[in-house]
Amino acid sequence: MKIWKECKKLRERRFFPENLIKKTKEIIEEVKKEGDKAIKKFTQKFDGIELNSLLLNKNEIEKSEKYLKEREKWAIESLKKRIENFSIKEKEKLNSWMSGKDIRLGKTFVPLERVGVYVPGGKFPLPSSLLMSCIPAKTAGVKEIAIATPPDKKGNVNPAILYAAKISGIKEIYRMGGAQAIASFAFGTESINRVEKIVGPGNIYVTIAKKLLFGEVGIDMLAGPSEVLVIADEKMPEKWVKWDILSQLEHGIDSIGILITTSSSLSSWIYKEMKNLKGDIKKAWERGGGIYEVESIEEAIDVANKISPEHLILGIKNAKKWVKKVKNAGTIFLGYLSPVSAGDFGVGINHILPTGGNASFSSSLGVRDFMKEINMVELNRKGIEKISPIVKTFSKIERLPIHGEEISCREEKMKP
Amino acid sequence: MKIWKECKKLRERRFFPENLIKKTKEIIEEVKKEGDKAIKKFTQKFDGIELNSLLLNKNEIEKSEKYLKEREKWAIESLKKRIENFSIKEKEKLNSWMSGKDIRLGKTFVPLERVGVYVPGGKFPLPSSLLMSCIPAKTAGVKEIAIATPPDKKGNVNPAILYAAKISGIKEIYRMGGAQAIASFAFGTESINRVEKIVGPGNIYVTIAKKLLFGEVGIDMLAGPSEVLVIADEKMPEKWVKWDILSQLEHGIDSIGILITTSSSLSSWIYKEMKNLKGDIKKAWERGGGIYEVESIEEAIDVANKISPEHLILGIKNAKKWVKKVKNAGTIFLGYLSPVSAGDFGVGINHILPTGGNASFSSSLGVRDFMKEINMVELNRKGIEKISPIVKTFSKIERLPIHGEEISCREEKMKP
Repeated sequence: MKIWKECKKLRERRFFPENLIKKTKEIIEEVKKEGDKAIKKFTQKFDGIELNSLLLNKNEIEKSEKYLKEREKWAIESLKKRIENFSIKEKEKLNSWMSGKDIRLGKTFVPLERVGVYVPGGKFPLPSSLLMSCIPAKTAGVKEIAIATPPDKKGNVNPAILYAAKISGIKEIYRMGGAQAIASFAFGTESINRVEKIVGPGNIYVTIAKKLLFGEVGIDMLAGPSEVLVIADEKMPEKWVKWDILSQLEHGIDSIGILITTSSSLSSWIYKEMKNLKGDIKKAWERGGGIYEVESIEEAIDVANKISPEHLILGIKNAKKWVKKVKNAGTIFLGYLSPVSAGDFGVGINHILPTGGNASFSSSLGVRDFMKEINMVELNRKGIEKISPIVKTFSKIERLPIHGEEISCREEKMKP
Repeated sequence: MKIWKECKKLRERRFFPENLIKKTKEIIEEVKKEGDKAIKKFTQKFDGIELNSLLLNKNEIEKSEKYLKEREKWAIESLKKRIENFSIKEKEKLNSWMSGKDIRLGKTFVPLERVGVYVPGGKFPLPSSLLMSCIPAKTAGVKEIAIATPPDKKGNVNPAILYAAKISGIKEIYRMGGAQAIASFAFGTESINRVEKIVGPGNIYVTIAKKLLFGEVGIDMLAGPSEVLVIADEKMPEKWVKWDILSQLEHGIDSIGILITTSSSLSSWIYKEMKNLKGDIKKAWERGGGIYEVESIEEAIDVANKISPEHLILGIKNAKKWVKKVKNAGTIFLGYLSPVSAGDFGVGINHILPTGGNASFSSSLGVRDFMKEINMVELNRKGIEKISPIVKTFSKIERLPIHGEEISCREEKMKP
C-alpha cells in the first residue's frame, strides 16, 4: 500500500475530551434539578436568546410554508414520500410471529410510545434529518413525537424544519438545543414530558449527553463528524471522486474524506487538486483527508473494513459482486453513479448512520429503532412435561432451587 | 387500585450510585493504560487469586465434562439446541434485500466479526447465560467469540460454564470478571484482542463499565436486577403466584416481584404468605415486593405497561387476547402454565432481557444484536435524473452547496 496522504483523524475517533464530558454533566445535572428554569438559562447562555415559551405554538408551525419557495416545499415533500416508502418496506420485515405446538414461542413487535427527536439548527439547519428520524418513527407507529431544535437569536426556528415537521404531522416542537435539550427529554420537566428514547444527530455536547444518559433513556447512537471512504478504480472519473470527498468535508473541519484506489494517476490527480483548497475545507482535508493506493480492490475493501466508514462508495466495476466482501459501513453506494448526496437527500434510505468506527457494531437508524421486540412464551400441560426436566436440572446447576419449584408446582396440579 | 404492599424498589430503578461510577472509571482507566498487568492486579484484589494466565488452555475446557453428571450435560445440550432453533427462526427474518429499478435501495445483514461475552461466575455460575449470548452470536455468523468469566479462589472456572462453552465451539475463555474484564474487551491488551461489541449480564460494576464504554465499543444493554410482574385473575392458583414471585426474588436482594390482580383473596393470601419469609429473600420482598389489587385486567395491564417489567406473566384467562394490550415487557409468559423458569432455562427464547424500565425502549438479546444492517443504494443514469432536482434543492436549503455538485457532475457526463 502506498500512502499518498495519511488520514490523521482516524486515530482520534471514538474518544471524547474529558473537559467537555465534565461540562455536559453539569448541564445535565442542572436540568435534572431545575427543569425549565435551567433550559431557559442555558438557551440564553448558548443560543443568546431569552425565551418565554419553549414550545412552539400551532400558528408558528402552520405559517412556515410562507417563507419557503414552491420548489423547496416540493423537495421536502418528495423526500418525505421516499423515506416513507423505504420505511414501509423495513416495517414489513418486522412482523410478529409465534410458532410451535405444546411449547409456543415467538416475538411481537410493538412501537415505542413517546420519542424525542433532536434536529440540528444553527449553522446547518437540517430538515432532512427531521424526516429521517420522524418518518421511520411514524411508520413504526410511535404515537408521540417531540422535537427539540435550537432557536436562532430571535427565538425562531428555521421554516424548512417547521415545514418538514408539519407535513410529518408533528405538533410538539421545543426551541431548545444542546445537552440541555437531551437532558430535558431524558428526565422530563414541568412543561416537557419524559420520552422513552432520544434519536437524531447533534453537536458534540448533544452526543456526549446522549452517551451519559444511555440506559436511563433509550439512545439511538452516538453520531460524530461525517465520513466518506471512496474505493475507486481507473474508470471512476477524477472529478467525481473530488466532489465525493469535498461533499463530506463541507460538513465541518472534523469530517473525514478518504480515497482508496488501484489507480496511481487518480491518487496523483486528487493529491494535486486538493492543494488548491482554501479555508475550512482545506483544514478539514489536512486532518481528515487521506489517499491510499493499493494493489487490488480486495485490498481496498480490507482496509475499508478496518476503517468502518459511515459512507462507502464503491466506484468500481462490478460493485454488486464486491459488496459481499464489505463487513463494515453505514451505507454502501454501489457503482460510479451513486453519490452520497443522493442518500442524504433523495432516495429515501436513512442518512442517520454510525460514525467513528461504530459501523463495525451498529447500524443505520430505521423503523427497528422505534419498535421493541418482545419475546412470547406459551406452554400447555404437555409443554410443561417436556421442559420440566431441563429446567429442574438447570435450577440445580445454577443454584437457584426456587426456579425448580416454579415449574414443579405446575406439574402437581397436572396429576389426575 | 388498592395497594396491599408498595414496591419501593420501583423508584430506585435506572440510576447508578456516583461512588460506584467513580470506582469503575478508575478501573477502566487503569486497564486502558496498564493492560494485562491491571487485570491481574484487580483479579487478585477482587477475586482473591494470583493468576499466571488469563486465557484458559484447551485441556481445561476439554476436561470440564468429567466434573458433570450425565443429566447435567444433557440439560446443557438440550438448552443449547432449543436456543439454536429459536435463533435460526430469528435469523430467517434478517434477509438481505434490494429493490427498485433506476433507484435500487436495500439492506444487507452482516455478522459482527468479534464479540466479547461476559458470563457471571461467583455466587451463581450461569452456563445458561453463556448459551443465551453465544448461540445467537454463532447463528448470526460471528467468527470470533471471546468469553470473560471470573475465576474462583483457586483460579478455576465452573465446569458447567466450560462445558456450555465447549459444546458451543468457543475456545477463547479468559478468567477475569468485573469492570476490568469489560475494559480489556473494549480496549484490548497485550494478550486480548479488542472486540466490536460486549454482551451479557454481570454485577453492578460490569453494568456501569458497559454504560461508561457505550459508543467506544458496542454494548447490548444495561442489565440490572431480575424482575417479574404477575398479572393474575381468580383462576390462577395461589401457590403458583407465590413461586413465580419467589423465583425472581431468589436472584438477590435487589430483585423485584410484583403481583397485580383482580382477586382480593389472592392479594390477601400472598400478603400473609410472604410474612413467613426469612433471610435474604425476606429482604428482597420487603424492598422489591408489591401487591396491587385492581378493578380489571385492563387496568392491570395499564399499570404493568408503566412499570415495563423484564418478565410479565399473564396468569389470566384468554391471555392471547390480552397480549395485544401489552406495550412494554422483556418477555411475556402467556397463561397459567408458562412459568418464567421455563424461559430462563428451557424453551429457547432469550433470557437476557431489559430491566429497570428499559423494556419501554429496548429488547431481548437476539440474533439481531450480532448483525449489522447496512443500507445499500445503487443508481443508474435515469435514477440520477429522477433524484437530482430534490438533492440540489436540499443542498440549497441545508446550505451544503458541494452536495449539489456531487450529483451535478454525474449529470454532465450523462449528456450526449
